[in-house]
Amino acid sequence: MNLADDLRLPEGVAALLAPLAELNTADAVEYLNTLDREDAVAAIGALSSARAVKILEQPELHHAGEIVALLAPERAAELLGLMADDRAADLFHELDETEREQLFARLGAESRQAIRKLMRYAPATAGALMTTEFVAVPADWTVGQTLQYVRDVERSRETVYAIYLLDPRQRTLQQVVTMRRLITGDMEAPILSVAQVNAPVTVEPNLDQEEVARLIRRHNLLAIPVVDVQRRVLGIVTVDDILDTLIAESTEDVQKFGGVAALDKPYMQIGFFEMLRKRAGWLSVLFLSEMLTASAMQYFSDELAKAVVLTLFIPLVMSSGGNSGSQATSLLIRALALRELRLRDWWRVALRELPTGAALGAILGVLAIVRIAVWQQAGLYDYGLHWPMLALTIGAALVGIVTFGSLSGSMLPFLLQRLGFDPASASAPFVATLVDVTGLVIYFSIAALILGCTLL
Amino acid sequence: MNLADDLRLPEGVAALLAPLAELNTADAVEYLNTLDREDAVAAIGALSSARAVKILEQPELHHAGEIVALLAPERAAELLGLMADDRAADLFHELDETEREQLFARLGAESRQAIRKLMRYAPATAGALMTTEFVAVPADWTVGQTLQYVRDVERSRETVYAIYLLDPRQRTLQQVVTMRRLITGDMEAPILSVAQVNAPVTVEPNLDQEEVARLIRRHNLLAIPVVDVQRRVLGIVTVDDILDTLIAESTEDVQKFGGVAALDKPYMQIGFFEMLRKRAGWLSVLFLSEMLTASAMQYFSDELAKAVVLTLFIPLVMSSGGNSGSQATSLLIRALALRELRLRDWWRVALRELPTGAALGAILGVLAIVRIAVWQQAGLYDYGLHWPMLALTIGAALVGIVTFGSLSGSMLPFLLQRLGFDPASASAPFVATLVDVTGLVIYFSIAALILGCTLL
Repeated sequence: MNLADDLRLPEGVAALLAPLAELNTADAVEYLNTLDREDAVAAIGALSSARAVKILEQPELHHAGEIVALLAPERAAELLGLMADDRAADLFHELDETEREQLFARLGAESRQAIRKLMRYAPATAGALMTTEFVAVPADWTVGQTLQYVRDVERSRETVYAIYLLDPRQRTLQQVVTMRRLITGDMEAPILSVAQVNAPVTVEPNLDQEEVARLIRRHNLLAIPVVDVQRRVLGIVTVDDILDTLIAESTEDVQKFGGVAALDKPYMQIGFFEMLRKRAGWLSVLFLSEMLTASAMQYFSDELAKAVVLTLFIPLVMSSGGNSGSQATSLLIRALALRELRLRDWWRVALRELPTGAALGAILGVLAIVRIAVWQQAGLYDYGLHWPMLALTIGAALVGIVTFGSLSGSMLPFLLQRLGFDPASASAPFVATLVDVTGLVIYFSIAALILGCTLL
Repeated sequence: MNLADDLRLPEGVAALLAPLAELNTADAVEYLNTLDREDAVAAIGALSSARAVKILEQPELHHAGEIVALLAPERAAELLGLMADDRAADLFHELDETEREQLFARLGAESRQAIRKLMRYAPATAGALMTTEFVAVPADWTVGQTLQYVRDVERSRETVYAIYLLDPRQRTLQQVVTMRRLITGDMEAPILSVAQVNAPVTVEPNLDQEEVARLIRRHNLLAIPVVDVQRRVLGIVTVDDILDTLIAESTEDVQKFGGVAALDKPYMQIGFFEMLRKRAGWLSVLFLSEMLTASAMQYFSDELAKAVVLTLFIPLVMSSGGNSGSQATSLLIRALALRELRLRDWWRVALRELPTGAALGAILGVLAIVRIAVWQQAGLYDYGLHWPMLALTIGAALVGIVTFGSLSGSMLPFLLQRLGFDPASASAPFVATLVDVTGLVIYFSIAALILGCTLL
C-alpha cells in the first residue's frame, strides 16, 4: 500500500472526518462521543497518529478502551506506544486479558515495561495516577547541559516544567528545579545553583489520590514526584491529573451523600439494571432500618389510639430531626475532608452542636406552637381541650429531636473516620433514618411525660 | 534605625519566629494559624519581605486581611505591592473602607491601579480570579527576543509557562506559545513559528469560576487568558487558582446539598450566632413547608381514627420517598454540573426515572409485604383481620411514592437550572420535604382505594 492509497479514504470515513478538521482536541472528543462505536473507530483509525494520540489521551473520550481494542492491532500498538504511559495504562485496564496480551506483544519493550509497572498500583493511588515520562538529570550538571537535555527530550515528556535532580551515584532525588528558574540561570553555573532551597515534597506510590491532590494544592505544585523507600523517583503526578481527580472525587462525594453507590460512568450511559443495583442496595438497607420506626410505633400504639391528634405531627417532628442532622453531617464531612478538624476534635464539635441544636430546635418549636395556637384560635382545626399541652409537647419534642439530630449528624462522620471509612460515606438518607427512629422514641416519651395525666 | 537595630528583635517575637525558620511555606501557614492574632502579626512583621509575601499569598492563611490591617502601614503597603495582585485584591476585599484608603495611598501607582481594577469584578468570576501579572509580547518578535524578555520579567510574573502573542498594532490576542515549545525553538525564528496552531481558548471577565475551571480542565491548560470584547488580554487565570476554586465549589455543593447556606469560613471559626443564621433559615423554610404534612394528616384524620394501624407505617413509607428522591437529585446535580446532560434532556431523564423508580418501589414494597406477613404469622403483632389488604396497601403505596420521589428528585435540578439557579442548590432535605407532603396524599389515596370497603 503506498501513500496515495492511504490517503484515498472510503467515502463514509471521509464524511466522518470532515468535521474533525476544524475542531480542537476537546471539541473533537465531544464530536466523537456523539458517533456510534464503529464510526468512532473508523474516524480515529484514519486520523494522523499525533492527532489520534491527543484525542485518546483525553479522559473525556467515552469507551476509549473498546475503541483501541477495535482498531487494527498494529495501529493500536503504535498509538499506545506514543501515548502518555499513565493514560495508556488506564486504557489497558479497560481491555480483557486476550486483547491486552495481543497489544503488549506489539509494543516496544520500554513502553511495555512502563505500562506494566503502572498497572501494578492500586487504583486511586499516586502510583496509578503517575506518569514515568518526566525529566531527571544528574545533580552535577550545569544549567546549560540541563537546558539542552530538556530541549532534546521535550516531545516525549508529559511536563518539563519541573526538573528532578538526582544524586549522580545513587540516583536518589536530591532537589527540584523549575523551568522558570532554569531559563534565568547562567548557562555555565551548576544546576544546583537554581534549585529550590526547601527539600522536595514527595509522595509514596500507595498514597491515596485525595491526599496527593491536597499536597499539590498545599504547595502550589505543577507536579509532585512519587518516590520509593530509597527515594528513587518512580514517576510524577501532574496537576491536570489532579484536576480530573478532584472532579471525580467531588462527584463521588455528592453521590455518596445522596445515598447512591458512586457511579463510575455518566448517568445516561448506565444500563437500567446497573442503575437499579447502584441504588437498590442502599435504599433497601435504609428501608430495613427504617422498619424500626414501625416497631417503635407499634410499641406506642396504645397511646396512638388514645390520642390520634399526636399522629398528625409525626412527619413534621421527624423530618426536622433528619434535616438538622443532614445539615450537621454535610458541614462535618467537608471540615474533615479539608483537614480543618481532626478525629481528636470530636468533643469540641459535640460541645458546639449541643447548644446549636437546642437553639435551632427552640426556633422550630416556637414556630410549631404558634401554628397550633393560630389554627386552634382561628377555628381551622380542633386539637381538643388539651391543645396547649399538645403544643407544648410538640415544641419540647422539637428541641429534643433537633438537638439529637444535630449531635448525631455531626458525630457520624467522626465515627466513620474512626472506623477506617471515608467520612464522606455518611449520607443524608442514612442520617435521616438514624434520627427518625430515635426521634419517634423522643416524641412519645415527651408526650407521655407532658400528656400523661390528661390525654394519655 | 540602622540594620543592627532592625535585627535585634524583642525576645517574644524571636521565640515566635524560631519554629518558622525550619518550615516550608505551607507548614509556616499552618503554624501561624495556631498563633493568636497579635502573635501572627508580630511574626509576619518580623519576617523577610520575600517570606512574608509568600505566606500572605496562601489562601489557607486565616484572617489574612486583619493581619495586613494590623501591620505597620508602610510594611503592609510594601508587602501588598510585592504580592500577586489577584491575592492582594482578595485581601483588600476583607478590609474596611478606611483601612483600604490608607493602604491604597501608600501603594505604587501601578499596583494600586491593578488592584482597583481587579476589585471591580463580581466575586466568583474569571475577572475576580485573574492576575494581571502575565507575559505578553508582540507577535512579530523572534524566539530569542521573547526568551530574553521572559528571563528579565520572570520574577514579577505569576506564571511564565504560557506566553501571549499580541497583534503589534491593536494589542489584541493572536496566539499562545507555551514555554516548552519556546525553549525548543531556533533563537532567530519568528515567535509565531512555535505558537500553537489552534485559536487560543479565552474567557470573558464575567464568566462564572466553575465554567472557567471546566474550560481549563477540558483543554488541559496551565492558564487561560481573560479578554475584553476587543480581545485585549485583561489577565489570566492560573491552574492553582482553579484548584482552590474546585475545592471551594465542592465544599459549597456538599453543604448546599445538606441544606446549609454555604459557609465561607472553616467550621470552628464560625461564631454561634452566625452558625445559627446559616442553618436556621433553611431549616425554618423546610419546617414551614413540612407543616403541610400536618394539614394533610388533619385532612385524613377520620381515616386515621378508624384505622390507627395505617399510622404505624407512615414514617417508613414517607422516608422511602425522601431517600429515593435524594438519590436521584444527587445523580442529576452532578450530571448537570459535568455537562453530561443539558436542560433539553429532561424528558430523557424522566423516561429513565419512571421505570427505575417503579422498580425500586416494587423492591421495597415486597420487603414491606414480607415484613408484615412475617410479623402477623409469627404473632409478633396483630395488624387485624384485614392484614393482607393492609400489606397490599403499603406495597402499592411504596411503588407510587418511590416512583414519585425518583421522578421529582431528578426533575428538581433541571427546574432550578431552568429558573436560572445553580442546580446544586437542590438539597436532600428540600427533596425530602417535597416528597413527604405528596407521599402522604398518595398513601392515603391508595389506602382509601384498597381499604375503602373494609377498614375505612
